[in-house]
Amino acid sequence: MTTRADCLHLDAGDPLASLRDLFELPAGVIYLDGNSLGPLPRSAPARLREVACDEWGRGLIRSWNTAGWIDLAQRVGDKIARLVGVGVGELVVTDGTSVNVFKALCAALALARTGGPNGHRRNVIVSERRNFPTDLYIAQSFAREHELELRLVEPHEIACALDATSAILLLTHVDYRSGRMHCMAELDRAAHAAGAMTVWDLSHSAGAVPVDLRRDAADFAVGCGYKYLNGGPGAPAFLWAHPRHVALMAESDMAQPLSGWLSHAAPFEFAEKYRPAHGVARFLCGTPPVLSLAALECGVDTLIAAEAQGGMQALRAKSQALTTLFIERVEARCTGGELTLVSPRDASERGSQVSFAHVGGGYAIMQALIERGVIGDFRAPDLIRFGFAPLYTRFVDAFDAAEHVAAVLASGEWRAERFALRAAVT
Amino acid sequence: MTTRADCLHLDAGDPLASLRDLFELPAGVIYLDGNSLGPLPRSAPARLREVACDEWGRGLIRSWNTAGWIDLAQRVGDKIARLVGVGVGELVVTDGTSVNVFKALCAALALARTGGPNGHRRNVIVSERRNFPTDLYIAQSFAREHELELRLVEPHEIACALDATSAILLLTHVDYRSGRMHCMAELDRAAHAAGAMTVWDLSHSAGAVPVDLRRDAADFAVGCGYKYLNGGPGAPAFLWAHPRHVALMAESDMAQPLSGWLSHAAPFEFAEKYRPAHGVARFLCGTPPVLSLAALECGVDTLIAAEAQGGMQALRAKSQALTTLFIERVEARCTGGELTLVSPRDASERGSQVSFAHVGGGYAIMQALIERGVIGDFRAPDLIRFGFAPLYTRFVDAFDAAEHVAAVLASGEWRAERFALRAAVT
Repeated sequence: MTTRADCLHLDAGDPLASLRDLFELPAGVIYLDGNSLGPLPRSAPARLREVACDEWGRGLIRSWNTAGWIDLAQRVGDKIARLVGVGVGELVVTDGTSVNVFKALCAALALARTGGPNGHRRNVIVSERRNFPTDLYIAQSFAREHELELRLVEPHEIACALDATSAILLLTHVDYRSGRMHCMAELDRAAHAAGAMTVWDLSHSAGAVPVDLRRDAADFAVGCGYKYLNGGPGAPAFLWAHPRHVALMAESDMAQPLSGWLSHAAPFEFAEKYRPAHGVARFLCGTPPVLSLAALECGVDTLIAAEAQGGMQALRAKSQALTTLFIERVEARCTGGELTLVSPRDASERGSQVSFAHVGGGYAIMQALIERGVIGDFRAPDLIRFGFAPLYTRFVDAFDAAEHVAAVLASGEWRAERFALRAAVT
Repeated sequence: MTTRADCLHLDAGDPLASLRDLFELPAGVIYLDGNSLGPLPRSAPARLREVACDEWGRGLIRSWNTAGWIDLAQRVGDKIARLVGVGVGELVVTDGTSVNVFKALCAALALARTGGPNGHRRNVIVSERRNFPTDLYIAQSFAREHELELRLVEPHEIACALDATSAILLLTHVDYRSGRMHCMAELDRAAHAAGAMTVWDLSHSAGAVPVDLRRDAADFAVGCGYKYLNGGPGAPAFLWAHPRHVALMAESDMAQPLSGWLSHAAPFEFAEKYRPAHGVARFLCGTPPVLSLAALECGVDTLIAAEAQGGMQALRAKSQALTTLFIERVEARCTGGELTLVSPRDASERGSQVSFAHVGGGYAIMQALIERGVIGDFRAPDLIRFGFAPLYTRFVDAFDAAEHVAAVLASGEWRAERFALRAAVT
């Protein structure tokens, strides 16, 4: 059984340990909610000051050129590309995840319907019943608008649900509740065998687990900037489309409907007629929020900094060790049978988080933990969720967090009135 | 003829003059491009530091509740509402202008088609040939998707172009090139007489001229946060829908297609099924970029601060005086016939900007002016454009800017090689 001393020893020998210094983490807090909002990179306040005071304040409108604002979204996109296995110029930072899901669905449907002799009969989107709500909401509206069937199934039913009517397989790579991770390569193969296109939401993957979109033959991917990418609250999101599809869209004169001016081939000509940009820039839309984008770059840079220590592979190994340790310690210390592990026990099937169910007490238990400085989150109806971002989480944090969970349960302190359910926040 | 001494006298007696102190404006610059990017509010750097260090850094995920991030977009929206004549809770800050144009078109089409016995036959969007490009680009894609005709006409042809086939009249209130301002009330009347819905882009109006959407019976409006609202580069945009339409959308089970999680009636329930929020929140989509949104609030607060000095009406009077003075001075000092006034000569038909055409020299003249510290901008093919934001522009600035224009033309310095055309930036 792992002891606290063992954990301190693991931390002392951890080649990734120094990456924690890239963040401002408040004293007395064990932060296990980087899957909802990554912490503040130490570089971000000074960078924000520079963008505000020097670039905006002194440079004014000139900074679109002189400070490189016009290239900023692509520069950050090229960095995220390195984390998800795609090339320079293939991925853009733009809008939010939900808007990007919409754009990807539009493009994927158009492409699925032009592919093969029966393309026009493809009228089903397959997804998971417990996919991330915003993906489902966008898909529901999209299906209604285009008179498609949105077929929602359980994870094990996905492959069987794909057939000659399937247009799109829309999945979140790592489930936001359980942390269960899909095999991307396998599902891309299954979708392609049925003639469908895949749209992957990497919101709980990018920066948390190695992703290799090209190797695994994905078609489209979107993802969030403010979770494991540490980009700050509401940071812009990203979108990737396979260059083959981007080229086909150009050949076939397909535009995505959010054809704002920055997706134009020559935005500064202010031409009357829309003409989409070459490349993935056709998925841009309007002017990006530069302040939030600058903070996102600071966040992404914390992951780029890890490349010298083995990058995503090394981070993945540490993440698996952390989540395995936490499960072991919670199960060793909480033997009353109140908690049920919801995340996969096999580390290879698990993202960088661990969730337990507690019938009736999930919300209150998490509030009691937060009062103790252990910040995870609650997901209705009964989940307590703990993210283990390997960039800044120590083995001793995982150990101590498990001790707090045990103490909250053993003491019954979570039953206090002040922890009664109110509206929760992601 | 107005002298420089007169201008100094006007500034000394200007009750709005102290509002200039709300901004950081670099020494040696006459900034006449607030219609493209408003300057830095003096409050913004400290506020950004607070959001980054205290709220993000120390508050972490808890700040969605404890720092009020979850209400921030609505709080800023309620402030913008005061500038455009609508009530609390009627207007939201969300996404970018282009995305909001798309949402407004979707809702307007659905409503136009349910209104009246021939609603389903309405298949035309009327707009201006020289409407702002991003509005046209979104409208082009939207028209293609829905098999509509996009009927682009000259300003004086708008009323005649409306008929029983019209679904939507999509207009920018103040033209981004000429500064010509539409009569909103008259065009709303004309559109409604034809049975069409109006969608107004207020990007060059909000914070620059008084807007009264309710009085003028508009249906939908969108606008930009980073121009006259001083919200910082790429600041989030806003959207307003008449509460009558919002109510009808609810009754008729109409959803806008960008139905991201924050537009859900109960986003934190993470329910599987989409159920749009009551009220204008149904036009939200994903998580807002909090840093950029916080800066936008600082920008909007500069306009709210003017309320004690007469608000938009007082700002409008000053703006008209500034633009009238500038036209008078430029025409008095540039008598060679090289410049042609493109903006309306009647101040009541003009927004807060002045544009002149110069065949062949527009780009170079503006570059020469920028080198002299007079920052306006160039719009292809031949316009030099000067914005006169009355919050921070002095009468002496208008006078001096005209002197610089005259000097650049008289000296021929704009013909220097270094001012030759390169890619321009908005």
